[in-house]
Amino acid sequence: MSDPLTFVGSQIDRFRAELDEFLRIPSVSAKSEHDADTRRAAEWLSGRLEAAGLSSRLIETPWHPIVLAEWRGAPAAPTVLIYGHYDVQPVEPLDEWESPPFEPTVRDGRLYGRGTADDKGQLYMHVKALEAHLAARGSLPVNVVLVAEGEEEVGSPSFAPFLDAHRASLDCDVVVISDTGMFAEGVPSLGFSLRGLAYFEIHVTGAKSDLHSGEYGGAVANPGNALAKIVASLHTADGKVAVPGFYDDVLDWDEETRAQIRTLPHDDGAYRAELGVGALAGEKGYSTLERLWVRPTCDVNGLLSGYTGEGAKTVLPNRAMAKVSFRLVPDQTPAKVRELFEKHVARVAPEGVRVEVKELHGGRPWRAKIEGAAFEAAAQALEDTFGKRPVLMGGGGSIPIVPEMEERLGATALLVGFSLPGCNLHAPNEWLSVAYYRKGIETLVRLYDNLGGLSAS
Amino acid sequence: MSDPLTFVGSQIDRFRAELDEFLRIPSVSAKSEHDADTRRAAEWLSGRLEAAGLSSRLIETPWHPIVLAEWRGAPAAPTVLIYGHYDVQPVEPLDEWESPPFEPTVRDGRLYGRGTADDKGQLYMHVKALEAHLAARGSLPVNVVLVAEGEEEVGSPSFAPFLDAHRASLDCDVVVISDTGMFAEGVPSLGFSLRGLAYFEIHVTGAKSDLHSGEYGGAVANPGNALAKIVASLHTADGKVAVPGFYDDVLDWDEETRAQIRTLPHDDGAYRAELGVGALAGEKGYSTLERLWVRPTCDVNGLLSGYTGEGAKTVLPNRAMAKVSFRLVPDQTPAKVRELFEKHVARVAPEGVRVEVKELHGGRPWRAKIEGAAFEAAAQALEDTFGKRPVLMGGGGSIPIVPEMEERLGATALLVGFSLPGCNLHAPNEWLSVAYYRKGIETLVRLYDNLGGLSAS
Repeated sequence: MSDPLTFVGSQIDRFRAELDEFLRIPSVSAKSEHDADTRRAAEWLSGRLEAAGLSSRLIETPWHPIVLAEWRGAPAAPTVLIYGHYDVQPVEPLDEWESPPFEPTVRDGRLYGRGTADDKGQLYMHVKALEAHLAARGSLPVNVVLVAEGEEEVGSPSFAPFLDAHRASLDCDVVVISDTGMFAEGVPSLGFSLRGLAYFEIHVTGAKSDLHSGEYGGAVANPGNALAKIVASLHTADGKVAVPGFYDDVLDWDEETRAQIRTLPHDDGAYRAELGVGALAGEKGYSTLERLWVRPTCDVNGLLSGYTGEGAKTVLPNRAMAKVSFRLVPDQTPAKVRELFEKHVARVAPEGVRVEVKELHGGRPWRAKIEGAAFEAAAQALEDTFGKRPVLMGGGGSIPIVPEMEERLGATALLVGFSLPGCNLHAPNEWLSVAYYRKGIETLVRLYDNLGGLSAS
Repeated sequence: MSDPLTFVGSQIDRFRAELDEFLRIPSVSAKSEHDADTRRAAEWLSGRLEAAGLSSRLIETPWHPIVLAEWRGAPAAPTVLIYGHYDVQPVEPLDEWESPPFEPTVRDGRLYGRGTADDKGQLYMHVKALEAHLAARGSLPVNVVLVAEGEEEVGSPSFAPFLDAHRASLDCDVVVISDTGMFAEGVPSLGFSLRGLAYFEIHVTGAKSDLHSGEYGGAVANPGNALAKIVASLHTADGKVAVPGFYDDVLDWDEETRAQIRTLPHDDGAYRAELGVGALAGEKGYSTLERLWVRPTCDVNGLLSGYTGEGAKTVLPNRAMAKVSFRLVPDQTPAKVRELFEKHVARVAPEGVRVEVKELHGGRPWRAKIEGAAFEAAAQALEDTFGKRPVLMGGGGSIPIVPEMEERLGATALLVGFSLPGCNLHAPNEWLSVAYYRKGIETLVRLYDNLGGLSAS
């Protein structure tokens, strides 16, 4: 019998090479042209889980399969459900990548590539931590169910039905998710919140075809102008979302959490410099971290109308499209926001155009139970690895299945993530710290041990 | 000696086949990938002019060449300068063309293809009318200078320098341009106005790269939202352009012209149905034809930001672009509008983004002298061909070189055009009436005769 941490150290080069293999599969779930790649990523992952010593299979869904792996050799120990996703975001704009998105490349201690941080790199830390335990000791300190879905980046439409259909196999005490980041390099962190998401397309249609802007300009509504009017109507001058009723369900955060947020080493000047902007923006009356973690927001994700190529085309376009999404906080829901948004858009839409709102996906916000033995087990594992007590941090992004799982499985969720600020999630040049790939695996090895010491439910 | 009109009748099939050849050359002046095609169109046209009996050559410019053809065998007669352009608009969106844009195709008496109406088809009517005179009689009733440029669709940057450099060869009494349309089928028309143009790109830049809309949304200005705010600020609620000072130089049109506009058989209901819109739009207090002909306007020509592909990408884009153009009326100038527009954009741009305005091109508006012998010569030629006295009509589009030529050459401009409403100028499925291609040639044969009867300057 050897030590799993020693095993990690001896195998880390192979662990890296395997991750590269995983990252090379372009599992872009949003694009149907990558459907086969997405399935290939699931099959590859399932194979690695089998090789590590778990029993693994693919669960079919109407879209991308779910990888379900299990190890149940410790009847007296608690059961841990590990959740992650093997799908990745689209990679456009491609020309801004310094190395190809699906060619993992190390520069300055960072592993660049789509999915390094979100979430293949972090999901694979779990696979390797499990392997380390099984290889070193022949067993795991906990029972494990690992679930990796392929639709996280497109709103997890198959996941809630999967939870319902496989409820019995998913019974667990704790859910562990590594799909978030650390507050800063050297500052281990545990997540206390996630924002929800309500993502829409607005389609504005005018005349039956594009028109000459000279021959028709001034007499016909222009969908591009109409869309700009609609999008501009979504914010007030002080940075609030101007959709009537939008804030009705927003809870004020407790003073304790706001006080803890204020203790974090955040510097607006450095943040501004890191982003390359002259000024920060957002809702008046809240600090930057509050704006990111405990306040809702509304952003344009895409705009398209008319002629966008080189030179001047004098076209009066007959269509305009915006992708617009809201980040939600407790207790907002995507369904209510959709209803309010649709009403608002219908009210502000100018005459002479047709406007359609299409919902692309949604997810609920989440707030953690920041006490208890499971939370302490994670805090201790992070402290043992990084030499520092973790801070509590919010999450601006959304993992809609976290509240779903807590509710349906009756288990506590732990958000233990290892990506670093500025790691370009969903953007060109996404990266993961090479050193933290190893530290992540080590933390998870310790976390399973700590959770193994808890009593099973 | 035979009659030129008889010659036209006997040769019309060949005239059509030659036009098809001309239309097949994709002379898209805005796109550098078509630079060679654009030159090829100039060379082809010059060859046809030589074959018709004129002496023709290409005048080089910094971009696309100008075709300059002359016939000076009637020293006692007036000199007519015929102006046209052999370049065409881009063809996007390609998938909306029912037949390929550079494969001229006849359906229901209409010749479909890019450039059929604007302006290759109409320019080529002149070439064939000149050939008819020379073939039938061995001479022309007037001296002719034909000038065809290849940069009309990109703002004619080389044309004013060309006018200056070749001032002596361009001396003329009348300028004839066939690059406009008729008010309706069976309603011959003479142009009394053209709007000017001021075309810009607005570039909004935020952070140094695209960001994750969850990780950063709410703390950083979104260029897509900022652009929408800027574009929305360009109009007031009653459809006026909201740029301060924009109307300072707009002349009230004379009551005579407005009264004549009211006599035209325009029906808003039919116009709405033709365009497929539920309601017309535009500046309150003016009729549709006034909005199109004697009032300025502002239109989005293109919008682009972030992710515009299939599905939901939660990106906070770092760039957004709008193409925005103004149609101008006397006495607005592109230079003044640029200045007002830049000031306005700088004033309304939100904090946290950089905004740049780029001028793509501009042209001045024009108002005709609607009396005199030349005007009467054109009216008579139209009446003899169509059996009806022409109406006076405005033009919503821009031919910036018309005011330039009137001013620099001291000649009267005649706008005698043969395209029909709904002919999809600058849009997919541009077309020219096959019957009016012939009627156009016949009208021009008569017009040269009528102008030959005037005294030379």
